[in-house]
Amino acid sequence: MTTSDLTSTHPSVPDAALEAYLDATHEQRLESYKEFLRIPSISALSEHAADCRAAATWLADALAGAGAEHVEVSESTGHPVVYADWLHAEGAPTVVVYGHYDVQPVDPLDLWTSPPFEPVIVGDRMLGRGAADDKGQVHLHVVALEGLLKTRGSLPVNVKYVFEGDEEFESAHLDTWLEANRGRLAADVAVISDTGFFDGNLPAITVSLRGICYIQIDVEGTALDLHSGQFGGAVENPANALAQIIAALKGPDGRIRVPGFYDDVVPLGDAERAALAELPFDEEAYRESLGLPALAGEVGFTTLERRGTRPTLDVNGIWGGFQGEGSKTIIPAHAHAKVSCRLVADQDPDRIFERLEAYIAEVAPPGVRTTVRKLGTGRPSLMPIDHPATQAAARALAATFGRDPVFIREGGSIPVGASFESRLGLPVVLLGFTPPDDNAHAPNESMLLANYEGGIRAIARMWSELAAIATAKSPGSDGTR
Amino acid sequence: MTTSDLTSTHPSVPDAALEAYLDATHEQRLESYKEFLRIPSISALSEHAADCRAAATWLADALAGAGAEHVEVSESTGHPVVYADWLHAEGAPTVVVYGHYDVQPVDPLDLWTSPPFEPVIVGDRMLGRGAADDKGQVHLHVVALEGLLKTRGSLPVNVKYVFEGDEEFESAHLDTWLEANRGRLAADVAVISDTGFFDGNLPAITVSLRGICYIQIDVEGTALDLHSGQFGGAVENPANALAQIIAALKGPDGRIRVPGFYDDVVPLGDAERAALAELPFDEEAYRESLGLPALAGEVGFTTLERRGTRPTLDVNGIWGGFQGEGSKTIIPAHAHAKVSCRLVADQDPDRIFERLEAYIAEVAPPGVRTTVRKLGTGRPSLMPIDHPATQAAARALAATFGRDPVFIREGGSIPVGASFESRLGLPVVLLGFTPPDDNAHAPNESMLLANYEGGIRAIARMWSELAAIATAKSPGSDGTR
Repeated sequence: MTTSDLTSTHPSVPDAALEAYLDATHEQRLESYKEFLRIPSISALSEHAADCRAAATWLADALAGAGAEHVEVSESTGHPVVYADWLHAEGAPTVVVYGHYDVQPVDPLDLWTSPPFEPVIVGDRMLGRGAADDKGQVHLHVVALEGLLKTRGSLPVNVKYVFEGDEEFESAHLDTWLEANRGRLAADVAVISDTGFFDGNLPAITVSLRGICYIQIDVEGTALDLHSGQFGGAVENPANALAQIIAALKGPDGRIRVPGFYDDVVPLGDAERAALAELPFDEEAYRESLGLPALAGEVGFTTLERRGTRPTLDVNGIWGGFQGEGSKTIIPAHAHAKVSCRLVADQDPDRIFERLEAYIAEVAPPGVRTTVRKLGTGRPSLMPIDHPATQAAARALAATFGRDPVFIREGGSIPVGASFESRLGLPVVLLGFTPPDDNAHAPNESMLLANYEGGIRAIARMWSELAAIATAKSPGSDGTR
Repeated sequence: MTTSDLTSTHPSVPDAALEAYLDATHEQRLESYKEFLRIPSISALSEHAADCRAAATWLADALAGAGAEHVEVSESTGHPVVYADWLHAEGAPTVVVYGHYDVQPVDPLDLWTSPPFEPVIVGDRMLGRGAADDKGQVHLHVVALEGLLKTRGSLPVNVKYVFEGDEEFESAHLDTWLEANRGRLAADVAVISDTGFFDGNLPAITVSLRGICYIQIDVEGTALDLHSGQFGGAVENPANALAQIIAALKGPDGRIRVPGFYDDVVPLGDAERAALAELPFDEEAYRESLGLPALAGEVGFTTLERRGTRPTLDVNGIWGGFQGEGSKTIIPAHAHAKVSCRLVADQDPDRIFERLEAYIAEVAPPGVRTTVRKLGTGRPSLMPIDHPATQAAARALAATFGRDPVFIREGGSIPVGASFESRLGLPVVLLGFTPPDDNAHAPNESMLLANYEGGIRAIARMWSELAAIATAKSPGSDGTR
């Protein structure tokens, strides 16, 4: 689905002063970007708690240096939230900007071509953990703020920055913080920069996000490993039992077998199905780029449909027993798996958890003890394409990158998307710039520098577009809001 | 099945001179036993190759010290084999004694109550890796040799010791060594001390051993882990695929589903079934001792039948993806499992491997690359209960431990059992002394010191019993052999 009419309310020529400023500060900008990436703010690992705080403090200092006010490293029940604002655009709309400074773990470390927290520019990319997800996108917001304030002395809109440190841990603590700070978060729209471009690096606006229900399955047998000869055949093997449970969760047809799992899935309409089919996407090239013998997934759906509009069930990690060299002949004492379901509107993560838990209890063999723990949840969300703020973002992207963006349904989850909608009552625009091959969550994460640079300009344009809408729609123009 | 008529051809009163010697040397014997256990001779881990050689050298020195001759640390294609003999019992039978000086890996290390290679006596047990399997049993042979030579100056039989260092690696190299040394291994019987007592610490003679076919299944997807949101639903997940494969190998009824798997299994006869049912075995107490909610296994068989007479399929280890704290949202690039089948007569391990490989290729999902590697094999074996040497061992046990031994089918595998039968044409007696709760292959391996001490005496008696049979059956008595 491409936008057919993106008549801009704002000239698409570059802002000459901003361009000059960005030219002059190119080197220091990249050095600052690298500095941010050097802080190993892995939120999921408790030994990195101090690094998360250090990243928050670094970011607060950068925002203050850029000209933001009321800068605060604000305590939450998890890692701190960085808050800052600039509120001098009287009568103009107010935007809440969201991003996150925490990053994913880095294992398997041996697959990185350079150390994950020693960022380097390789060719046209910044390489390092967080370069794309999401420090690179947070950083370009700070640069846009700085550039506009340094060159104009003001912004066309009011902006409130909320940068959290628990996103890679399912934003487990942000809801509480949002509730506690509801007073100072009054706004007209939320802009979330934690998504990216479409295949072929096409500018894109994400109009839906999948939710998530992340569980751990623990299967316990005996207190110690058993000799597989002395005991083999007479006791249930926890690792075999775990495989049996996982295999029962999803069939070879890609359909999840948990009773009621699909009950609340909003069916894909014919129109949207047709729009997805129109997206420039080559399944064979996609397969080849992944180096896979074949694509796979739920029967009856295309790859784009599977990826954006259908729920999933994936093992994220599995372990038990002997993993070393050679052959140890044991029945493992216990075996474990981390399993996550991506969810789509209107699936409820807590309800899905209950269904998973009940089904696993039903299919688990009786000779072992099986427990299911909830490690995290996030609600799915779906945004209207024709919302004026979404259209403003489309114009900002078109003017900056020279082509109309596509509207996509994203397979990933940004739980905070649903939170801004439901808790703060804000329309949400997902405006992100990462390239599709950024290796987010994997070794050798990278950001295309052209996307990073374009992101700075697109954000500056987005603020102008939002201001222009408000002017066009002010009581003095057509009387509607 | 208990022996009904164990009339000894040899008095069951203790050998007073041997007892006095063993009393006087009690402390130095235990110190020597500990010294042997301190050498971390883990054959499966290449970094322990030097330790395996050190254990071989230590053992050769101990044999020489005990009075053995032709002591040699003999090279093989794997870790060295320790050979030694004492051949001065002219006209008496010759026994090949087999044991192994290598041990299992020690992980998970954190479950050991004391370091695995710092042996300690705790209560009535020697605690340490190898205390039972099999250094303890090798050591008691050395002590028996020493005691007899020191007190009598001779043995009643000729003995050839073959102690290998690759048993915990499926004796992968011993066959080649046996072939190369066939000339000096001429004998009348093989005595293998690598088995143990029955539940309740009842003296036992093992009359069958399971074979093994040990494989590794490797499932490969993309080169790097993928973001489970961006790609989830569109590609096969290697860990889900692995679970699906493993679940396909064995049904919830405990039956292995590989076509032809059971074809060559010798059916359990009614008589043997009845004999197994007579063994003193309490399934409920067994379940409780293992701390399991229920026993499990192949439908239609009792626990003792499953454990001794039926083949198995067990996952020994499984791994892939994220195993750390928290929740990393990835599709693992690859996943792996070590799987072993215990085999029974007349299953052929190589044929079973081919069947496993073919079936896995059939059930593996097409969206990943699946390979199967053979890590080790061993043939099953079945020995006649009424063989004179087996009956001699039964009398030696009865005289030493004060009760008739039971005859059991052992679930474990000692590939060399089949090798001595098929390559050297020797009848094999499995005469071992470890307690049933020895935690072999697991943390906190231990040996009951009473079994170790009894083992020394039983071996001394066994040599006399074998000599007596030969005398009774010599040409001068009844003319048969």
